[in-house]
Amino acid sequence: LIFDFYGYYIRDVHLVTFTSDFGLSDPYVGEVKGVILAIAPEARIIDVTHDIEPGNLLQASFALSGSFRYFTEGTLHLVIVDPGVGTGRDIVAVRTPRFTFVGPDNGVLWEAVQRDGPGEIFMLDTERLYAELQRRHSDNTVVRHILKNGTSATFHGRDLFAPLTAYLCAGHPLGAVADPCEELVKLMLPVPVKTEQSVAGRVIYTDRFGNLVTNIPRDLINHNDEVFIKVKNELALVGRMSHTYAEVHQGEPLALIGSRNTLEIAVNRGSACEYYDASNGDEILILKGKRGQ
Amino acid sequence: LIFDFYGYYIRDVHLVTFTSDFGLSDPYVGEVKGVILAIAPEARIIDVTHDIEPGNLLQASFALSGSFRYFTEGTLHLVIVDPGVGTGRDIVAVRTPRFTFVGPDNGVLWEAVQRDGPGEIFMLDTERLYAELQRRHSDNTVVRHILKNGTSATFHGRDLFAPLTAYLCAGHPLGAVADPCEELVKLMLPVPVKTEQSVAGRVIYTDRFGNLVTNIPRDLINHNDEVFIKVKNELALVGRMSHTYAEVHQGEPLALIGSRNTLEIAVNRGSACEYYDASNGDEILILKGKRGQ
Amino acid sequence: LIFDFYGYYIRDVHLVTFTSDFGLSDPYVGEVKGVILAIAPEARIIDVTHDIEPGNLLQASFALSGSFRYFTEGTLHLVIVDPGVGTGRDIVAVRTPRFTFVGPDNGVLWEAVQRDGPGEIFMLDTERLYAELQRRHSDNTVVRHILKNGTSATFHGRDLFAPLTAYLCAGHPLGAVADPCEELVKLMLPVPVKTEQSVAGRVIYTDRFGNLVTNIPRDLINHNDEVFIKVKNELALVGRMSHTYAEVHQGEPLALIGSRNTLEIAVNRGSACEYYDASNGDEILILKGKRGQ
Repeated sequence: LIFDFYGYYIRDVHLVTFTSDFGLSDPYVGEVKGVILAIAPEARIIDVTHDIEPGNLLQASFALSGSFRYFTEGTLHLVIVDPGVGTGRDIVAVRTPRFTFVGPDNGVLWEAVQRDGPGEIFMLDTERLYAELQRRHSDNTVVRHILKNGTSATFHGRDLFAPLTAYLCAGHPLGAVADPCEELVKLMLPVPVKTEQSVAGRVIYTDRFGNLVTNIPRDLINHNDEVFIKVKNELALVGRMSHTYAEVHQGEPLALIGSRNTLEIAVNRGSACEYYDASNGDEILILKGKRGQ
Repeated sequence: LIFDFYGYYIRDVHLVTFTSDFGLSDPYVGEVKGVILAIAPEARIIDVTHDIEPGNLLQASFALSGSFRYFTEGTLHLVIVDPGVGTGRDIVAVRTPRFTFVGPDNGVLWEAVQRDGPGEIFMLDTERLYAELQRRHSDNTVVRHILKNGTSATFHGRDLFAPLTAYLCAGHPLGAVADPCEELVKLMLPVPVKTEQSVAGRVIYTDRFGNLVTNIPRDLINHNDEVFIKVKNELALVGRMSHTYAEVHQGEPLALIGSRNTLEIAVNRGSACEYYDASNGDEILILKGKRGQ
Repeated sequence: LIFDFYGYYIRDVHLVTFTSDFGLSDPYVGEVKGVILAIAPEARIIDVTHDIEPGNLLQASFALSGSFRYFTEGTLHLVIVDPGVGTGRDIVAVRTPRFTFVGPDNGVLWEAVQRDGPGEIFMLDTERLYAELQRRHSDNTVVRHILKNGTSATFHGRDLFAPLTAYLCAGHPLGAVADPCEELVKLMLPVPVKTEQSVAGRVIYTDRFGNLVTNIPRDLINHNDEVFIKVKNELALVGRMSHTYAEVHQGEPLALIGSRNTLEIAVNRGSACEYYDASNGDEILILKGKRGQ
């Protein structure tokens, strides 16, 4: 265990997850990794996804907040979905009980930090970061190249997020390059509305298999409940809750608790997306079933 | 060398290949890797492909059986193409002379195991796996999270395949979490039909470059043979066997032995897929050439 | 530091970058990595991109030459974009002051080598490479498999580039498997034309965000300059140079210095590609602004 300036421990795991909207076609993801590994050769970088829709903060927040717990304690979670790059938005590092989160302060970290919180929030001071890099890593050609060129207007991922991530991964003290601050910009995932007779939620993610992931958590659902989906202003009955895909015939829809621990609507060996012509934001209605019915 | 309960050695390579139909847009691949690395931090995970068509067992079997030999002896090959997730299908680990294969028992492992075989087959006992994880890794927050939530109905990759893979990668004994069983579910890749005058095969894979990979192995082909492709019930002559793309003019088709050691139909600096409007399943006919002709 | 036969040092970084046109859907990228890791288990392979358009040497050259400096000194940069696979084109390894480059001698390495040059160029001798593999690594099953099958006509990436890369990564002497040669095949990225009143350049890359990356370097541009784009033979005014995206309203176009240190045309939170219906090769014109105007 290494204790840094503020007394936070950085566990010796050197694991970095990386979530972005960079895609995999351009060399951007590779360059961010190159910079991290130049400064922190011991880092192990795992891609969560780089296929976030450009600038879609809700999608990134949903991906991160559902995934971060599946990485070992001490992991640094780096998120770069940053439509405000080059504006006054801050860059933050947040220390929660189990993880460090690094990203732009545009709300993208908020949900995950809430779930692991409370977190201590630090705001990057670019000049002090570059001074520390100069002091500690000026023998490194990558660091010298970045310091010489300065921060680009368009690619803070490579020029600021990656050096900050690597600096922390190398065990250097966060307090030397960032200042404590009070609050993160808040971005709440939409929450379902509950009445005595119903729960009204939404599709908040659609995956490769065409599954419709909703924001309705497991504990608002009983096995007798009836699930409806509203498509183009018409309510369609999906059915009662199932336990597995195979409870319905191939090609038939079903509702079950998915891997995000929320209600999912799926089609056995098919795509619920196509079956209902549904997409993110569509409404989901649950009518509470009476036990014994 | 580490010997496990059943006397099988696990070579100290810690290399895991990962083939799935998860795609790279969703966080699923990252979560599987997170769980593996939480339990077996020494694992090195190499992606074969995650772009298997959802549920396409033949495509996954073809990818795996052509690739597994290019990884060093002792590698664990993890395949998650699992349309029957949540049903009664078993999860198996197979020890062949050089490799360990982990996947659902739906046929996807059969061809590769045949080629490296004979294999000793073990069927996962989920309860014993979770008990072993509890006993050995309960200080790990990821393991605790999985044990608390139990197995999801829809994502055995994260909740069962990844822990089993990591457990084996960490050198723990397979016999403690799985029972020997007799046979794998069989899924044969289509085989060509040979007569004295001809060989009739099929396109079984089309790659990014538009190459048509067939199931006709090198040893059924002579250099004098004439190759035909049947598209929309019409036979088109591709030509005699070539050694390299450059033997024909740019934009012209050719037949040669490809990197899977089978007949491939290609277009020099072009796409045979587009040239012939061909796809998986199309018939390929070889008429045996007379030597000296 | 390890000194090889020719006195070049191979720094102990074991970092390999990998750029190709293989895509991620086929198992080709995984197989190349498998072969590298079989021979050089200490290698760490970072993907730059595998989404180069099949055979597009200019695009690969642009990606590599913009990215190579963001990897630590001593990194080996492997590029496999090789439309002439199986013809007489050579395979080369180039030692520049900071890096080793491996690729086909078709021009794809030229720009990057120029930028880090001068480089010492070596041409692979396949027979000597295979003899060295036989001598040093014949206990390895992957090496044995490759030596037994010989070089395929279509996949030199797996059968030649990967073994050469791994051989170098393992610290073996380049001179034992390759001969010095004089010159690389030259492939220049298009250069802008400068007059007293104007600079005429081109779009040479379009990224995922729809940014139009041009070949006009920072030092040919002043802040007062007016930027035009020629689309379907009509000149459209983009505007004067901006520093950041946020200087214009959302949905409006702007010109700024991008992360390649060249002029980029972008749309704030939108796609310049779509805004102008522009693509690679389109002309960009800069009219020199008068200071104080």
